[in-house]
Amino acid sequence: MQLGVIGLGRMGQIVVNRVVDAGHEVVAFDLDAEAVATAADAGATPAESVADLADRLGDDKRIWLMVPAGAAVDATLDELASHVDEDDVVVDGGNSHFEKSVGRAETTDAAYLDCGTSGGPAGAELGFSLMVGGPQWAYDEMTPVFDAVATGPAGHDRMGPVGSGHYVKMVHNGVEYALMQAYGEGFELLANGRYDLDLEAVAKTWNNGAVIRSWLLELCEEAFREEGSDLGDVADHVSGGSTGTWTVREALEQEVPVPLIYQALAERFGSRDDARFSRRLANRLRYGFGRHEVVRDEE
Amino acid sequence: MQLGVIGLGRMGQIVVNRVVDAGHEVVAFDLDAEAVATAADAGATPAESVADLADRLGDDKRIWLMVPAGAAVDATLDELASHVDEDDVVVDGGNSHFEKSVGRAETTDAAYLDCGTSGGPAGAELGFSLMVGGPQWAYDEMTPVFDAVATGPAGHDRMGPVGSGHYVKMVHNGVEYALMQAYGEGFELLANGRYDLDLEAVAKTWNNGAVIRSWLLELCEEAFREEGSDLGDVADHVSGGSTGTWTVREALEQEVPVPLIYQALAERFGSRDDARFSRRLANRLRYGFGRHEVVRDEE
Amino acid sequence: MQLGVIGLGRMGQIVVNRVVDAGHEVVAFDLDAEAVATAADAGATPAESVADLADRLGDDKRIWLMVPAGAAVDATLDELASHVDEDDVVVDGGNSHFEKSVGRAETTDAAYLDCGTSGGPAGAELGFSLMVGGPQWAYDEMTPVFDAVATGPAGHDRMGPVGSGHYVKMVHNGVEYALMQAYGEGFELLANGRYDLDLEAVAKTWNNGAVIRSWLLELCEEAFREEGSDLGDVADHVSGGSTGTWTVREALEQEVPVPLIYQALAERFGSRDDARFSRRLANRLRYGFGRHEVVRDEE
Amino acid sequence: MQLGVIGLGRMGQIVVNRVVDAGHEVVAFDLDAEAVATAADAGATPAESVADLADRLGDDKRIWLMVPAGAAVDATLDELASHVDEDDVVVDGGNSHFEKSVGRAETTDAAYLDCGTSGGPAGAELGFSLMVGGPQWAYDEMTPVFDAVATGPAGHDRMGPVGSGHYVKMVHNGVEYALMQAYGEGFELLANGRYDLDLEAVAKTWNNGAVIRSWLLELCEEAFREEGSDLGDVADHVSGGSTGTWTVREALEQEVPVPLIYQALAERFGSRDDARFSRRLANRLRYGFGRHEVVRDEE
Repeated sequence: MQLGVIGLGRMGQIVVNRVVDAGHEVVAFDLDAEAVATAADAGATPAESVADLADRLGDDKRIWLMVPAGAAVDATLDELASHVDEDDVVVDGGNSHFEKSVGRAETTDAAYLDCGTSGGPAGAELGFSLMVGGPQWAYDEMTPVFDAVATGPAGHDRMGPVGSGHYVKMVHNGVEYALMQAYGEGFELLANGRYDLDLEAVAKTWNNGAVIRSWLLELCEEAFREEGSDLGDVADHVSGGSTGTWTVREALEQEVPVPLIYQALAERFGSRDDARFSRRLANRLRYGFGRHEVVRDEE
Repeated sequence: MQLGVIGLGRMGQIVVNRVVDAGHEVVAFDLDAEAVATAADAGATPAESVADLADRLGDDKRIWLMVPAGAAVDATLDELASHVDEDDVVVDGGNSHFEKSVGRAETTDAAYLDCGTSGGPAGAELGFSLMVGGPQWAYDEMTPVFDAVATGPAGHDRMGPVGSGHYVKMVHNGVEYALMQAYGEGFELLANGRYDLDLEAVAKTWNNGAVIRSWLLELCEEAFREEGSDLGDVADHVSGGSTGTWTVREALEQEVPVPLIYQALAERFGSRDDARFSRRLANRLRYGFGRHEVVRDEE
Repeated sequence: MQLGVIGLGRMGQIVVNRVVDAGHEVVAFDLDAEAVATAADAGATPAESVADLADRLGDDKRIWLMVPAGAAVDATLDELASHVDEDDVVVDGGNSHFEKSVGRAETTDAAYLDCGTSGGPAGAELGFSLMVGGPQWAYDEMTPVFDAVATGPAGHDRMGPVGSGHYVKMVHNGVEYALMQAYGEGFELLANGRYDLDLEAVAKTWNNGAVIRSWLLELCEEAFREEGSDLGDVADHVSGGSTGTWTVREALEQEVPVPLIYQALAERFGSRDDARFSRRLANRLRYGFGRHEVVRDEE
Repeated sequence: MQLGVIGLGRMGQIVVNRVVDAGHEVVAFDLDAEAVATAADAGATPAESVADLADRLGDDKRIWLMVPAGAAVDATLDELASHVDEDDVVVDGGNSHFEKSVGRAETTDAAYLDCGTSGGPAGAELGFSLMVGGPQWAYDEMTPVFDAVATGPAGHDRMGPVGSGHYVKMVHNGVEYALMQAYGEGFELLANGRYDLDLEAVAKTWNNGAVIRSWLLELCEEAFREEGSDLGDVADHVSGGSTGTWTVREALEQEVPVPLIYQALAERFGSRDDARFSRRLANRLRYGFGRHEVVRDEE
């Protein structure tokens, strides 16, 4: 089949490669001409604009958006608006908020599939996990493409109506934060505990048969191999946090307790603030009631 | 080589089977004669007592204890005391506290290896992850057995001196609690969220390529397949907790924050108490300051 | 001075009483005629409608709204719209979200003061704590009324521009949740601990000189006196949660970690759900990896 | 009545002063002669040794120990051993672990009262809150002294048998940690929130009539008055933690969830570690799965 891909960053190129490799025809566009050239080298037909891409796709267009979540998605949909109709299918493979996807489906003439995509750059070889929301017929139409982009037929599924794909991906990411922090706590204790341990060896041993083996633990093993058991100069500064924040907000809305996900997110916030006000106040209060000496910053 | 196995419960039988299958000779004993017979059927030489087992092993005895952590380990070591010397090796493959293992190593004439064993009954086929502490020479001597019991050479390693094996296993279990709770929070949100989802399909899709894929997530998938997306009559009651408690106590001792592991453990405690006093008091206090109606138990 | 009070529920009546007792003139209105009659008995001039109330106040109207947060505030402001101008002052003494107050200030011709009110029905005698946001001149104009409604001049202050009053009150409530849960945890441990304690005596002793003495602890003491050390039939069900939810959402927005406030809120959610999905899954997973028996609900 | 006081640090001197001021006779001893002189100036009879103090007390000795928890208590009890019998009463007013107190009661011939003392140096004027464990008769005998040292008769009570006084004090301190952190979170949000607030004014307003008013909040008010709304150079470093650790350990033992107390304690640990390993690992893992740039420490 034929697929248009708009957005040729790291993830978009992987989509192009995997779909081309599966024997499909790809028309590719990005605002960056160099990225288009890279896709062309990989076997895609280059397009000069969104309109050009749409023209080249003919009727029953199948289009995959892999642009940054946010304004770029809306801008691309605006450009596509006059080129698509109800027989066409648009997939948003980025990290959009599910409510945005619900809104976009309403204002797009094409069938709209929101597709949570997990696996990162490593998916280039393995394929991704695709969590898809939207009309069944559109999902069915896209199945050959999903088979190619995902790890295979088992790596994608229709979660439910539009929004459900990005909803499930949002929760996936919330869980991801908590898993990382859980492993981190274990290794923090081992790194500060009673024995002088080779943490790569610990992770390797766990990854071979232990209950907690996982891909994230394989990445821990890789991290210790490359950075050392003390993680070298890796800083206590965790960036990101938007999908975790969305997860906690949704959990508040649904009144579902998610203390581990919340705490993992809070650790990120804390990692970016060298002097937590709450602790500074506690330091001072201990003087207030117990005349314990206040610890003060050196100049 | 030749191995004595004392303790032939579910895990002990797996050890027997895997070591026999690897071509080694096994002498097996358990207080339950039926368990000894099962081991004999699997190819082990039955022993009638600890003393008999020791006699049958000759010099340079290699003995694997797979008895319940606690008094049973001490009782077995007492029985072994007059039969072992410094050329012999005793492995404790159970879930003992690392400080107990340190103490036992001091009072045992044989070389003592504490071996944290993870993987559960599923290890019957796959092999286990073995985290071993104790003298290097003893670990080296036991390598053929560890190769057989573990998933292979990658599935075992010497963590450090005696105690370190059970120490690493203790932390493994603390992490395990947190991972389970983290997945649980994600699925709890999905089960109470905006979409009517097939949680087995979610878990299956995640297990194929998503960042959070893991063996525990495969067990979630299995749970939803067997119990349904609503988990049927599975109760809100989580048993166990000793190794998690040890982990938190050790983290207190080392002054390492482990909020996710702590909270996962606290959820277990909470699951066993239908009426948490703290919340009951909060309910009453809301009346105290705001005259909000007190919710009372029906008779 | 002269004050119009709209909304004569429990809190509104206290406002009327305290302002009348301070020697001011009050015109009072509520949709419920009986409530108006009660206010009249207390010395207020009854009004038959919002318009009537506005008429009776003459120029430079000073009006206190004590209606439920939400639609009622907007409806009352709509009714007031044609009766007030920039020389008038409207106070919202309810628990509105600060962003709503900012919006209302923009669409109201009168000067708008958002006034967080804490102290509950007990404030009838003691007076309230009033956290006020809005223009300085309007705050100054209202000072005699604030002196009367609050515990006195120390019991009210201008926090900053409009919105800041309800903002500070929102955070107050978040802290309140955490304080209640903190005391609750202490008493939960004492109630389940090693000694058979009279919790009223504990709270009484603490309230007399201990570091943690507070009004909430006095309410704990009262609760144990009235319900007993076991809290009798007080249920594990904590209602409410909106201001706590707002606090956590704002903390997410500002990327400020508030783990105690979050957890206190999560305990409320948990208290309303007898069968937490996350724990049920953990129960099942322990079978998955360790063949620990699944605890199942009885029919 | 007559009281011997051993240990004349800050707290011991306050005990001396309050008991002398109440008209009782005090014999005072400390290893530091200057401290004894200070007590003598305050009206106490100086003693030259523990033995001398015991001699001066005659029969039916009433002795208050106010020495640092730990070895000093045992050393003092050893010295007292030959001087006391079953008609005498010894009070340990320090922060001993309750299990130590139980043990000491068993090995002391005198009746033993463990007395949790809260209120800090501020108790010099107000008096303390005293939580007492031990035999009823001994508590009754000491009542005049407790009346003097406490805020009055309401400020002390017998909690139960020996150990219960220090047990209740231990839990008091656990709650104290959580209350401080709860206020801290609220002020941290306000300090980083949408409005430029005078936190002393906020605390002052809350302390006058708000639900969360308390002595600790008065200490917050004082802290902001003395250090400014930004707390100046007060460092993010909270010392201490032993009684909080004891509380969490006891809660683990009793299987009572105390997430707020735990988290408050964990914040102390975190405040002493500038580079949390768990977060450093999360930073690195984000590169592992998503190729997000690793943040690294500058040289």
